Amino acid sequence: MRDVAIIGAGMIPFGRREQDDLMDMLAWAALQALDDAGLGEQAVEALYVANVGSGMLQHQLAIASSLVDRLSLLPAAAETIENGPASGASAVKAGFLAIASGCYNTVLVVGGEKMHAPAVPHSADFLSALTHPQAESPYGVTMAALGGLFARLYMEKYGVTAEHLQAVSQKNHEMGALNPYAHFRTMFDPEVVFHGPLAETKNPIVADPLRLYDLCPVSDGAAAVVLSNVEIAKKAGRPYVVIAGFGQATDTHTLAERADPTDLKAVSLAAQRAFEMAGLGPAEIDVAELHDAFTILEIAESEHIGFFKKGEGGPAVASGKTRLGGIIPINVSGGLKARGHPLGATGVAQIVEIVWQLRHQLPSTRQVQNAQAGLTLNLGGFANNVLCFILKRASP
Amino acid sequence: MRDVAIIGAGMIPFGRREQDDLMDMLAWAALQALDDAGLGEQAVEALYVANVGSGMLQHQLAIASSLVDRLSLLPAAAETIENGPASGASAVKAGFLAIASGCYNTVLVVGGEKMHAPAVPHSADFLSALTHPQAESPYGVTMAALGGLFARLYMEKYGVTAEHLQAVSQKNHEMGALNPYAHFRTMFDPEVVFHGPLAETKNPIVADPLRLYDLCPVSDGAAAVVLSNVEIAKKAGRPYVVIAGFGQATDTHTLAERADPTDLKAVSLAAQRAFEMAGLGPAEIDVAELHDAFTILEIAESEHIGFFKKGEGGPAVASGKTRLGGIIPINVSGGLKARGHPLGATGVAQIVEIVWQLRHQLPSTRQVQNAQAGLTLNLGGFANNVLCFILKRASP
Repeated sequence: MRDVAIIGAGMIPFGRREQDDLMDMLAWAALQALDDAGLGEQAVEALYVANVGSGMLQHQLAIASSLVDRLSLLPAAAETIENGPASGASAVKAGFLAIASGCYNTVLVVGGEKMHAPAVPHSADFLSALTHPQAESPYGVTMAALGGLFARLYMEKYGVTAEHLQAVSQKNHEMGALNPYAHFRTMFDPEVVFHGPLAETKNPIVADPLRLYDLCPVSDGAAAVVLSNVEIAKKAGRPYVVIAGFGQATDTHTLAERADPTDLKAVSLAAQRAFEMAGLGPAEIDVAELHDAFTILEIAESEHIGFFKKGEGGPAVASGKTRLGGIIPINVSGGLKARGHPLGATGVAQIVEIVWQLRHQLPSTRQVQNAQAGLTLNLGGFANNVLCFILKRASP
Repeated sequence: MRDVAIIGAGMIPFGRREQDDLMDMLAWAALQALDDAGLGEQAVEALYVANVGSGMLQHQLAIASSLVDRLSLLPAAAETIENGPASGASAVKAGFLAIASGCYNTVLVVGGEKMHAPAVPHSADFLSALTHPQAESPYGVTMAALGGLFARLYMEKYGVTAEHLQAVSQKNHEMGALNPYAHFRTMFDPEVVFHGPLAETKNPIVADPLRLYDLCPVSDGAAAVVLSNVEIAKKAGRPYVVIAGFGQATDTHTLAERADPTDLKAVSLAAQRAFEMAGLGPAEIDVAELHDAFTILEIAESEHIGFFKKGEGGPAVASGKTRLGGIIPINVSGGLKARGHPLGATGVAQIVEIVWQLRHQLPSTRQVQNAQAGLTLNLGGFANNVLCFILKRASP
């Protein structure tokens, strides 16, 4: 496989963007990444778009064919990649393999989702299309319900407490407040939301034991990266990022079919494969973006990846080990919890954040000092399709 | 790039399959291809699914994650590729690049669509999501309308006649009647449909000058191929097929923006790139599957690819040059016109047909004698995203 570099990254602020068009959002993020890459005369040869809901939510299909024209990239190749909430990482994977194969030298990957859409009365209807059509959705099983069931089992088995979950939420909201691209850019008062007399109202149960502040929001947004072969990356004469490791694994579509539902086998395997390819271990990762659609997932993933032993992920977050300045800063971006979770955008946004971290270009309030290696973990379904990337800083 | 082989091919009969579930159809086609490949202990490492409408038509998303579990291929990677009517070829491309990169050694590609679905009152509503949401669909421009406008211009410019279009329809229906996988498996009487007193009723105008028998049907179906590196293909000890050439190009999303709407630039460029990579020219192709969503397209494509000069494609089909036994048999499968056009399945089904032809395994009634090289052309939108493959027979 040829080595693959990430030479451009960009995104637009996530949030409620009712007035914006999906295609505009994708184009804005793409232009940021293209400007950042500064390819000049070197044309983009292929476009991969990550999106889940354009057909259902915007009544528009084949959006890659539309975007490649909109961006004046004709006659570049174009495709849309859909893999549920892991669509973003899957599109980056597609670009990665396309360059690794030698077929293309430059690829643009854009992920985006406009979930606040008039076409669907409630986003829960759209999201229910991600659950199993026979074994889950007819019984009213939603993603949040699966999150609640998983949380209860995981908490009982590994001693995770409500305080541990709150620590994830608090950390990620604090970081989101420092990230101009985050959906939630103001911090809540943990004393009021978690402990005060209004806590039951401010932070009600959504899917026991998960409460409102344990769940990521429904967001609109877009993010993009430009990939190239390493020769092109070196020509720019500045530090760049290489894809050092990649791993992917699938698990049973339904959570109910797993022998041990607390065992996120696809997370362990995807991370293991990525570490193997990169020749690195968990201790050598300086910063990580995990898929905290629910707070419990950040803890469970940090253990399955190997940052902490089983049962130690909860105490680790509570004691600040995953904060900026801790031994492994997790979700410095704010994560899905605070940066938001526009499905197709998320996996790309995770890569964008790590690229920024590894290029040491962020404000000191949220820059991981001297970061050399970063990891992203993007989950499809309830961890039934998991992709892990390991990125490394490189110099020309 | 590593060489890539196609070692398994399978499909299910196309047609109106109201009673069948999309996931069942995808699984049936996949199992045919897997059986054909006879991988044995060699596990499939990745799955690519081509599908356009599962969200809108079946209210189901992330179907690749579901199918990989259904087929007991866990923990293989899985993604869905959407590229409008070119989704099938785009998924084969994804598998091709994944193996060419060295990331995987075995990949399963499955394309399928269930267009007769209760969720959408009329397939035209679904298909309208493929046209431009600002520049086309608000004005009532459908794919068929674009076909009619294109046909009129092309006929006037290059002297294509109604008889030429009828010859395409007649040829493809005759071949479809010999293909057990075709949507239309009985031949109509050309004397009645084209010339008799009932012709206006039997073959009414849909989008002038295109009539009913100029348009492909709305079909349900699925098709699959198994790709591998060449070493695995050789081990099977029988002739196999290699992907010798691949080309892709995009064009303006809307037909109206093209300086010369009769110039299918993306077709010419995609074919040119595929020929260049394969080191072959049009004269060296023994059999071709073209994208005849409308009869005029088969003629126009046969000219843009270089099988015939501009203006000679119509007379060529009328004089039998593109029939079985002619100088370049086109759509021996029946094409989209008679085999049918389940969007996500089509590009994969084209590859399946060429694999069967190059392995010399078809009944003599529809086998191209001693075929050594074949070509497929799959169109997204109104030829705004075009993929061309050139396949060659190889021996172990």
